[in-house]
Amino acid sequence: MSRTDSGLLAPTWAGTPVEAATCDEAWLSAMLEVEAALARSQARLGLMPAEHAEVITEVAAAGGLDVVALARAARAAANPVVALVPAFTALVAAVDPAAAEHVHRGSTSQDVLDSAVMLIARHVLAQIDGDLSRTAAALAAMAEEHRDTLMAGRTLAQHAVPTTFGLKAAGWLQLVLDALAKVRSVACAGLPASLGGAAGTLAAYGEFARPERDGVELIAPFAEELRLAEPVLPWHTVRTPIADLGAVLGFVTGALGKFAVDVQTLSRTEIGEVTEPAADGRGASSAMPQKRNPVLATLILSAGRQVPALSLVLAQSMIAEDERPAGAWHSEWQALREALRLAGGAAFTAAELAEGLEVHPDRMRANVELTHGAIVAERLAVALTPALGKAQAKALLTRASTTTGAPFDEVLRTLPELAGLDLDDLLDPARYTGAAGQLVDRVLLRYRNYTSL
Amino acid sequence: MSRTDSGLLAPTWAGTPVEAATCDEAWLSAMLEVEAALARSQARLGLMPAEHAEVITEVAAAGGLDVVALARAARAAANPVVALVPAFTALVAAVDPAAAEHVHRGSTSQDVLDSAVMLIARHVLAQIDGDLSRTAAALAAMAEEHRDTLMAGRTLAQHAVPTTFGLKAAGWLQLVLDALAKVRSVACAGLPASLGGAAGTLAAYGEFARPERDGVELIAPFAEELRLAEPVLPWHTVRTPIADLGAVLGFVTGALGKFAVDVQTLSRTEIGEVTEPAADGRGASSAMPQKRNPVLATLILSAGRQVPALSLVLAQSMIAEDERPAGAWHSEWQALREALRLAGGAAFTAAELAEGLEVHPDRMRANVELTHGAIVAERLAVALTPALGKAQAKALLTRASTTTGAPFDEVLRTLPELAGLDLDDLLDPARYTGAAGQLVDRVLLRYRNYTSL
Amino acid sequence: MSRTDSGLLAPTWAGTPVEAATCDEAWLSAMLEVEAALARSQARLGLMPAEHAEVITEVAAAGGLDVVALARAARAAANPVVALVPAFTALVAAVDPAAAEHVHRGSTSQDVLDSAVMLIARHVLAQIDGDLSRTAAALAAMAEEHRDTLMAGRTLAQHAVPTTFGLKAAGWLQLVLDALAKVRSVACAGLPASLGGAAGTLAAYGEFARPERDGVELIAPFAEELRLAEPVLPWHTVRTPIADLGAVLGFVTGALGKFAVDVQTLSRTEIGEVTEPAADGRGASSAMPQKRNPVLATLILSAGRQVPALSLVLAQSMIAEDERPAGAWHSEWQALREALRLAGGAAFTAAELAEGLEVHPDRMRANVELTHGAIVAERLAVALTPALGKAQAKALLTRASTTTGAPFDEVLRTLPELAGLDLDDLLDPARYTGAAGQLVDRVLLRYRNYTSL
Amino acid sequence: MSRTDSGLLAPTWAGTPVEAATCDEAWLSAMLEVEAALARSQARLGLMPAEHAEVITEVAAAGGLDVVALARAARAAANPVVALVPAFTALVAAVDPAAAEHVHRGSTSQDVLDSAVMLIARHVLAQIDGDLSRTAAALAAMAEEHRDTLMAGRTLAQHAVPTTFGLKAAGWLQLVLDALAKVRSVACAGLPASLGGAAGTLAAYGEFARPERDGVELIAPFAEELRLAEPVLPWHTVRTPIADLGAVLGFVTGALGKFAVDVQTLSRTEIGEVTEPAADGRGASSAMPQKRNPVLATLILSAGRQVPALSLVLAQSMIAEDERPAGAWHSEWQALREALRLAGGAAFTAAELAEGLEVHPDRMRANVELTHGAIVAERLAVALTPALGKAQAKALLTRASTTTGAPFDEVLRTLPELAGLDLDDLLDPARYTGAAGQLVDRVLLRYRNYTSL
Repeated sequence: MSRTDSGLLAPTWAGTPVEAATCDEAWLSAMLEVEAALARSQARLGLMPAEHAEVITEVAAAGGLDVVALARAARAAANPVVALVPAFTALVAAVDPAAAEHVHRGSTSQDVLDSAVMLIARHVLAQIDGDLSRTAAALAAMAEEHRDTLMAGRTLAQHAVPTTFGLKAAGWLQLVLDALAKVRSVACAGLPASLGGAAGTLAAYGEFARPERDGVELIAPFAEELRLAEPVLPWHTVRTPIADLGAVLGFVTGALGKFAVDVQTLSRTEIGEVTEPAADGRGASSAMPQKRNPVLATLILSAGRQVPALSLVLAQSMIAEDERPAGAWHSEWQALREALRLAGGAAFTAAELAEGLEVHPDRMRANVELTHGAIVAERLAVALTPALGKAQAKALLTRASTTTGAPFDEVLRTLPELAGLDLDDLLDPARYTGAAGQLVDRVLLRYRNYTSL
Repeated sequence: MSRTDSGLLAPTWAGTPVEAATCDEAWLSAMLEVEAALARSQARLGLMPAEHAEVITEVAAAGGLDVVALARAARAAANPVVALVPAFTALVAAVDPAAAEHVHRGSTSQDVLDSAVMLIARHVLAQIDGDLSRTAAALAAMAEEHRDTLMAGRTLAQHAVPTTFGLKAAGWLQLVLDALAKVRSVACAGLPASLGGAAGTLAAYGEFARPERDGVELIAPFAEELRLAEPVLPWHTVRTPIADLGAVLGFVTGALGKFAVDVQTLSRTEIGEVTEPAADGRGASSAMPQKRNPVLATLILSAGRQVPALSLVLAQSMIAEDERPAGAWHSEWQALREALRLAGGAAFTAAELAEGLEVHPDRMRANVELTHGAIVAERLAVALTPALGKAQAKALLTRASTTTGAPFDEVLRTLPELAGLDLDDLLDPARYTGAAGQLVDRVLLRYRNYTSL
Repeated sequence: MSRTDSGLLAPTWAGTPVEAATCDEAWLSAMLEVEAALARSQARLGLMPAEHAEVITEVAAAGGLDVVALARAARAAANPVVALVPAFTALVAAVDPAAAEHVHRGSTSQDVLDSAVMLIARHVLAQIDGDLSRTAAALAAMAEEHRDTLMAGRTLAQHAVPTTFGLKAAGWLQLVLDALAKVRSVACAGLPASLGGAAGTLAAYGEFARPERDGVELIAPFAEELRLAEPVLPWHTVRTPIADLGAVLGFVTGALGKFAVDVQTLSRTEIGEVTEPAADGRGASSAMPQKRNPVLATLILSAGRQVPALSLVLAQSMIAEDERPAGAWHSEWQALREALRLAGGAAFTAAELAEGLEVHPDRMRANVELTHGAIVAERLAVALTPALGKAQAKALLTRASTTTGAPFDEVLRTLPELAGLDLDDLLDPARYTGAAGQLVDRVLLRYRNYTSL
Repeated sequence: MSRTDSGLLAPTWAGTPVEAATCDEAWLSAMLEVEAALARSQARLGLMPAEHAEVITEVAAAGGLDVVALARAARAAANPVVALVPAFTALVAAVDPAAAEHVHRGSTSQDVLDSAVMLIARHVLAQIDGDLSRTAAALAAMAEEHRDTLMAGRTLAQHAVPTTFGLKAAGWLQLVLDALAKVRSVACAGLPASLGGAAGTLAAYGEFARPERDGVELIAPFAEELRLAEPVLPWHTVRTPIADLGAVLGFVTGALGKFAVDVQTLSRTEIGEVTEPAADGRGASSAMPQKRNPVLATLILSAGRQVPALSLVLAQSMIAEDERPAGAWHSEWQALREALRLAGGAAFTAAELAEGLEVHPDRMRANVELTHGAIVAERLAVALTPALGKAQAKALLTRASTTTGAPFDEVLRTLPELAGLDLDDLLDPARYTGAAGQLVDRVLLRYRNYTSL
């Protein structure tokens, strides 16, 4: 019996904790956990003997179903639950035929699968939370350490004005905190259990509960058994939970992608301001002996380029016709799983990158000085504005920086308009980092408030 | 002088209020409003004479710039602000040359454009809030009125079990409330002003403020002048505000898209359960006299099919290298504008659709009866389970519903296994709507709690 | 050691032939096939002893590498080839240490992986070609059989004018032929081998070939060994082959999606004009005994909703910086694999659907008559135009069809303006199918020309 | 009367030739051109007096309709044609009431709008063809001139092995030729006229033609009048032409995006190997006097980041239910227009960039030498392989390049294993450009073959 994927083409998450949390076996376990919770919640309402629910729970926990066979059987009904139910029922029946009669009572495929999705998502979001927290801690330390480490600010690929590496790290941290806030917001608002029955009316659940109970009473205990939130309404076609997951996962990989793209840029051979953490074999090439590639940043960027497209599939699934759509729901499963994996793998990778990033202040300093002072031309323009007016000041400096091949600072010293200025001070890039330090402090304050929660 | 677009290809928003809120002139006004607020906030800190800020504010409010010329000039710098600044400065200089020297002081294109984006977004979100509120009110009334109106629940395009039109409307309402909560969350958390200067250090702002003041002090008054939130950090490459807008706009059109796709389906000629509100010429065809097309639903769906793709562009812009990226930022503007427009137009349209939707309970009832009771086969399976076991019960009914051409109810009356059952009761679809009514009440309770805020 | 995915969440392709063609083992085999072809092509140029190439080929064919271990090792270099090379080298060394020295000579990860991608793609495109051909044949037979089968033409969800089921099937056929043409165009233009070496200059290949040979001479025999096309240029960052695959796979699922969405619509309970082919358990629900869901259409639509997003990832990978990008390339692998699978599964499913679709002309006829002649209102407008002018004719009929509740044909018979017309003829929908038959013939002619190639 | 957009947020295309080709007035003109062609083709078949067709053609050419009013009226029918027809009819009637009766005879909105789309697309593709041809010519000259200009090849942001600037330019050229081939393929296969009538049967066209003629005869002359291709079938829901346009436009901006992203990278302050063509004010900042931003590359990249998302909207529109969908068609218009504009603007910009790009071979040479020979470590590994075996050779050089801070070449000269090698030769990067020159020649040959067509 051959299996299909082992993660060979997915180094962002292969072998990281999110792999086990999202593999087919995990999904199968989660679906069985849902069937067991359904039985227990029905037993709590007195709708089945407690011992039946216990048997169902034990058999569900024991597993033993053939996931490959189920995968193949799923084609007949366009979802894996229709074949799962008789297979699981048979396992229960082998232990206790009477209990088997109570499996999946009043239920429907979507209740089982959607609730299982939420269990998986909860697990992965907790992993992501942990990895983003590690990342944030490392970035906070980095921002603090390098609060005043001078480097070139770059815009449109050109040196702009000086900044500090602390402020750059603070920007990364700000995004990670934003991501963390969103992950927690989704987790705290509560991923909801799904319970609606065939068309969202809970009718068969109610029919099995009559006359003492009705279907709506089942929602709360079912959600409790799964430690999921109780939904206001069955959400078979009210896809807020799915769209929210898509949005937050896209945000996570976008936030980490900003960190990664900067690491990639700063580790360019010509720039050389940061280096990825070393590890045996890390960053090797199959051809070139000297290579130490920024592979962690590459893995994160690879996720950041895929997840928004997967989120789009999930966002579009909101437009789900009728009480269950023919296609929109079915297109969610793989897209959501891969988004969970990529975001989980990216967060795991980002923590490693943030904790081990090597920073080279000497290279930063050397790069700042590459333009012989042109990087502070803005400051000179400010200084000249009172005398020349802002337009003429800027025009003068534009000419000085572009019209001759001579170093900018040398050109400046020949200009009569600048005669009275203290050029040594004005051209010192370390004196033109503006509010960088204060801005770092603002983000660190946010970080400390966050972690003290 | 020719203009480019008038909305001819965008009937979802052409002529609706969001058009004026997002046109090029609106964007130009917003950018000038930002320049004026910058001057006033600098004056508040004593960095320029108050009368200069007043002149700048007055000239900004008066407008008069040539938007077409500015649009064309934008190519030289890849953004419209670089050409706007001298043009606006010249207007100010015509009134007061001294004030002109203080225009755009210490500033940078992205501060002006990003802050303007937030002004526009705030305006559009307020419009959307209003239209979603109208939509919610209409849907709440609909859910209440039709709490017990019987109709067919449909899954995978087939009749499933009965439901009520009230529950369907409650599902639409639930999504609209979710959308409203997200719109308000973004609006309340506060769309932030953008103030960072050339590379996010506020250095030139600080240089003009020295020695009494520094750049970071400018953030709060600038944000106040614009009635925008004060950011922790300049967000030139911390694109949370943009990604959030993309996500919420995608959610709005997704939520409304669910409503629209159901209206489209239910208004099919063969189904005929709802009709769009009539209006003179509405829904006409250029060819067929009898046509009354569901055009409002079509306009909403057209938005729902476009906005997720635009949101994707915005989500991807999070991965913005350096202190200002060469391309990511520039790809946001049109995508965000069109997303705002489509969501705004869709919300406006949805309010009209919800307020005027004609509901046909008689057609709903007639359709429920089309399958001669097969729509309640699930209920019969429940009833037969004690006697036959769940598997046999289901198998028996599957055979009964598919193997002969005879009406399902007639077949049932010939089956010995059903001899003891009260088929008249069991086959009555009105007695198998489960918890539909209670679920409607739950959503209406949420609605009332929401509106009482 | 646990594997990750078995297709449990992917019923569109799980268990279909494309699964085996695209699983991790298939990818591993393809990569080894590339290493073997490289050795053989070098041997053909006299760059290594032929017996070494034979050993390498035999060991590659024997397989035996641990795909899970390789998957996990791939993180270190951000691609699976860097770890594959020493592992494969060790297998060869166990047979012949001298041969092992010649493994992967002068090569680079991307040459191996990109060439493997093309081998996999060629295999899947051949499968798709076969399934599209079967689909086309079935649709051609359907179009011919139902050339004149009357049914309602529907626009914007409303009855428009009559058409024929043959014309509808011809439209599906036309799209399938378009898809087939594109698949063949990509396959015939030739999927190219990838051979560039570390940075696309073939330098190390050349270095091993000096002085008799040079690197560029290796391209042709290498491509020949793989039966792939010879590229003009190494395409490490000239991603035309990848973008083309993305576009054609998106087209395939879009074309089949049109077929599927129509089947879904026409199989609605209220419409009932087609039924999916029956099979034991096919279309079953886990809850409702009577259900026969259009699951094949659902599986196809599920693919059609995912593949365009995956194609987008591939299209964006064209923007690949430098000689090998850090992220763009890495984001292609899973996206392309899943696109191949979904398109392959959708084509397999479409053939089954087309070959077994049940058509119900009686229901089509009954539906055409639902509007009591309003479906031919356009024809009446034409007939009245000479007498009334086109605007008045249309206005009269609009009033007749909308202002009273009475059947359209009855209203018409009361109108003096229509007194002289042969209403029996004019109201017969079978006499207003226009050129439907001729249009069917045009598509069938295209089909026959195509198959006679 | 206020207009909506002037291109203020779209510097990629504002003011370029594609603006006029795609503005609302252009769309309106194209729709009128279609109405005129319809009349003339009907006249050619004898279905209306030739003088009526002449009047209709003259009035269509004269224009004079209020595009803003039409844009607003489009909401009522969800498309702009329904309101256009009576407005245009009135204009014709003012000249000749009898001719007015023949306007839009037998037609439908989609025939007019889809045919107009094809007219616009043809025009824009011709512009793109011209600009890509200019770009290709400039890149071919660049590749030839710099066939042997040494530069660093870079992979994963690190120096890899040497290459030549000619080979880099040849890669850009290869993509532009691929794009040109696709543009011409779409243009040559022929953008089809759309003629189907209300539901694709041509019924009303036929009704007006009876009894001498029938509807299908109208297709060929109608297409001829518009100089568009004759379709096999009406393509209201056979969206191959739209999907094809989306794919080709996405390819164009992807191909140019590769060129742009490399220009952006190579123009980084630290790299400095190319500079964008200078022009007055080009690349200026609103703040920093010294800036010369790579704005042309930025404009192109901005397009490359948006068009794939728009293409996705178009690809998804293939799944169009019934004979005309409620939403899918309507979502195409803006997406296609913006994709045409962005691709047109990007091509225009790329020609300017390619023709004026400044290349700095001295900086390329200096950068190649930055790593003191590590850039040719691969070559050394090849040289050492006979003596040490490939694994040991690579390991030795990895150690040499990473374990000490000393320059690589100096470290090498201390290693006994390298004692016998000619290190001066081996470390010369100019001697390790592999087949770069030959590969340039291959692409130039393709270019010459292409232009000699």
